[in-house]
Amino acid sequence: MLLDRRAVMAAGAAATTVQAAQAQSATPPLTSSVTRILADYITGARYQDLPANVRREGRRTLLNYVGVAVGGSRHETVDRALKALAPFAGSPEANVLGRGERLDILNAALVNGISSHLFDYDDTHLKTIIHPAGPVVSAILALAQHQPVSGADFLNAMVLGIETECRIGNAVYPSHYEMGWHITGSCGVFGSAAACGRLLRLTPQQMMWALGIAASQPVGLKVQFGSMTKSFHPGRAAQNGLTAALLAQQGLTADHAALEGKDGWAQALSRQVRWEEVTQGLGTRYEAALNTYKPFACGIVTHPAIDAAIQLHDAGLEPDQIAAITLYANPLVLSLTGKTDPANGLEGKFSIYHCIAVGLLFGAAGERQFQDAVVRDPAVVALRKLVTVRTGTILTPEQCDLGVQTKDGRILSRHIDKAIGSLEKPMSDAALEKKFLDLSEGILPETKARAVMDTCRKIELQPDAGALARMAAA
Amino acid sequence: MLLDRRAVMAAGAAATTVQAAQAQSATPPLTSSVTRILADYITGARYQDLPANVRREGRRTLLNYVGVAVGGSRHETVDRALKALAPFAGSPEANVLGRGERLDILNAALVNGISSHLFDYDDTHLKTIIHPAGPVVSAILALAQHQPVSGADFLNAMVLGIETECRIGNAVYPSHYEMGWHITGSCGVFGSAAACGRLLRLTPQQMMWALGIAASQPVGLKVQFGSMTKSFHPGRAAQNGLTAALLAQQGLTADHAALEGKDGWAQALSRQVRWEEVTQGLGTRYEAALNTYKPFACGIVTHPAIDAAIQLHDAGLEPDQIAAITLYANPLVLSLTGKTDPANGLEGKFSIYHCIAVGLLFGAAGERQFQDAVVRDPAVVALRKLVTVRTGTILTPEQCDLGVQTKDGRILSRHIDKAIGSLEKPMSDAALEKKFLDLSEGILPETKARAVMDTCRKIELQPDAGALARMAAA
Repeated sequence: MLLDRRAVMAAGAAATTVQAAQAQSATPPLTSSVTRILADYITGARYQDLPANVRREGRRTLLNYVGVAVGGSRHETVDRALKALAPFAGSPEANVLGRGERLDILNAALVNGISSHLFDYDDTHLKTIIHPAGPVVSAILALAQHQPVSGADFLNAMVLGIETECRIGNAVYPSHYEMGWHITGSCGVFGSAAACGRLLRLTPQQMMWALGIAASQPVGLKVQFGSMTKSFHPGRAAQNGLTAALLAQQGLTADHAALEGKDGWAQALSRQVRWEEVTQGLGTRYEAALNTYKPFACGIVTHPAIDAAIQLHDAGLEPDQIAAITLYANPLVLSLTGKTDPANGLEGKFSIYHCIAVGLLFGAAGERQFQDAVVRDPAVVALRKLVTVRTGTILTPEQCDLGVQTKDGRILSRHIDKAIGSLEKPMSDAALEKKFLDLSEGILPETKARAVMDTCRKIELQPDAGALARMAAA
Repeated sequence: MLLDRRAVMAAGAAATTVQAAQAQSATPPLTSSVTRILADYITGARYQDLPANVRREGRRTLLNYVGVAVGGSRHETVDRALKALAPFAGSPEANVLGRGERLDILNAALVNGISSHLFDYDDTHLKTIIHPAGPVVSAILALAQHQPVSGADFLNAMVLGIETECRIGNAVYPSHYEMGWHITGSCGVFGSAAACGRLLRLTPQQMMWALGIAASQPVGLKVQFGSMTKSFHPGRAAQNGLTAALLAQQGLTADHAALEGKDGWAQALSRQVRWEEVTQGLGTRYEAALNTYKPFACGIVTHPAIDAAIQLHDAGLEPDQIAAITLYANPLVLSLTGKTDPANGLEGKFSIYHCIAVGLLFGAAGERQFQDAVVRDPAVVALRKLVTVRTGTILTPEQCDLGVQTKDGRILSRHIDKAIGSLEKPMSDAALEKKFLDLSEGILPETKARAVMDTCRKIELQPDAGALARMAAA
């Protein structure tokens, strides 16, 4: 290296002082020790201190994760990743969820993380659009098959991982996201490193290194949306974070200010940062309690309309009685999902017309309603042709009005302020379980699927969290 | 994902058109297909077409790489990485250079890449400060132990990998570097993907995917300079690029404009880009021919002074005859390497005083002259206390004047315009071989070291390039 001026700094105790002073001169005092504050928190926080609502949301996050990972496990993206990497995998300690293969824990973390994101049906931290579980749970579930981990420790590590990635995401959102980063992968690597580091019982010093090694390995660009590499992002983030924690455990050093320091992560990956989002309220305010789950296997912008359509279906509206359908919605709905004539399942996810049609016809918009055959089903095609969309900014993206005129002249309508699955109107436990069963159908027998859900619900009582991965394998 | 608007695009043939049109609207036409142009070049370029000077520099790059990787192989950073990751490694197909361990090819690429950078003694592409061989050769040398690769194909892939990473580096330098990226890792991943993809005989389509998967995995921040994670960067870049090529081979898709597209690599990782640096003169202008090698195991800014000191040593100046030493140099020298009283070997690399002292005393400034014991050697300490540094911008960083006053009143001096190791005054083959022998001493027996160098020099005649890795193992 030509300009190794920092190398001098790390050489002695004086280095830290120099560095801290440098950071302080440019930013408020707090920011000179973000990585340290975070490492202290992650290594010190205990399961016993988690509030009941955080534990509850953690169990729901886990259940949703296993459901989407099992559901995505037979996708050809997983087949291709396995074909490419299994020949180089190590000791088969860890299960691929929903499948028969076993891999070393690093590769298992990668593949399960891919599966969990394939249907765009995973959990969402709405402030940042991070999908928290993929990077974190994929990593610690694999790690729990390498070393014994109690369910309580598992849940604690999971929450700490989610706190870490979402808080860092909060600090750099929206600048970081707007630059082009797929925030689930670029912040997720910290979540994985934190959660794995916690299970490895890293010291605060080692945890700082783990976060630092993670900082050097962000994953994911939004340009990949629409390609298989999108789902690779949370998987690779899981694997990179686990790698970082394992290296830190053996003493591979990293800078102590990798997040906040000069030429560090935030400088390179964001144009703006609010470090107080990371450092304030640790142990009292929980981002992990704000996790949400998609009731429908498509973009959130379509959810109000689908919610309304399903309500009309559930109220007994017969599709063959429908003469015309009108949606009033925010302009974002058409700009993101305005495809009038989708040709396949993926395109169907970007067609508000298709989304409304399946809601009215099937009372559901799960992965099954976005299969190619459903998108081409004449009954679905006929119904979506009846849909007219009118937009106006008087409605927020969270709102919509859906009106249906029947052949006998009736007008039925539903107004949505917050769709099911939003923070204000979360999916019920029962709805999450139905989603799980839908996703695992044909992959896990129903009795097994129910046993897996039961284990998720009672994870804190499990003596061996890794057993969950064995159960959720096919 | 909330806003998966790109997903629609990749669904059909129409997608490419939309995307290309988008890219074109924002930038000159050329840039709409940077990834494609690069993939076409990498998959099409043949060994037979490489100019003789490029082949020659390739052989020198290879020899220097093996030397520094063997030399670094016993560093505790390598011990720690192996301890952390070997338990999860797969089939032991590939050698760790300079050691006895064998790992799967992905882990071998990582560990050899780490070794190659540990002494900051590797090759340098001066325009970008990329160290080209670490990410590229670490990956293809491991891959050549998995599948048979002829030496000619190996050299061709190496050159193409170096072209790829250095041209992308040229396109975004200096903005990308100034943002905080350790460019060897963040661009190196492309070099590895390109070189590995070439050896895997990827189609142009697959090569675009490989470059795309690589784009989603940049490695390395400058904040890590001074920690072990710095050397992790080229290693992980090698591993990530190999991973990308293996995944692309099995059909894991990525965006076709991952480098240049909206929300792509350049948008996220640089504030400025000159795509013509990537796309122009492919096959006629070779960045790989511009590689340089350090004669001294420390930052390039010290090299003119060391060169001058060694010239005085070689002219017969006796250290005990020295009364005073004065260096006239560019101010950068003091700002980067102004440590007057270094406490250990690492600090010695950042002390121009130490650098001059060892040059005068030993006529060398290799890794050995930066051992802790040498930095504390009373004869060295005494000599460096005689050094005065005067700076002025009348001298460029490449220039210096070194003057020595002897106890009997003589004045001896040397002026340097371009130090040994620069592009204009490259290390001779003989000097590279001496560097190799110094680095491998105590690790490889000299006869073996000479046989390894002979294999590097004749790499194009080898039927099996992977044999080189076996030879360079201890």
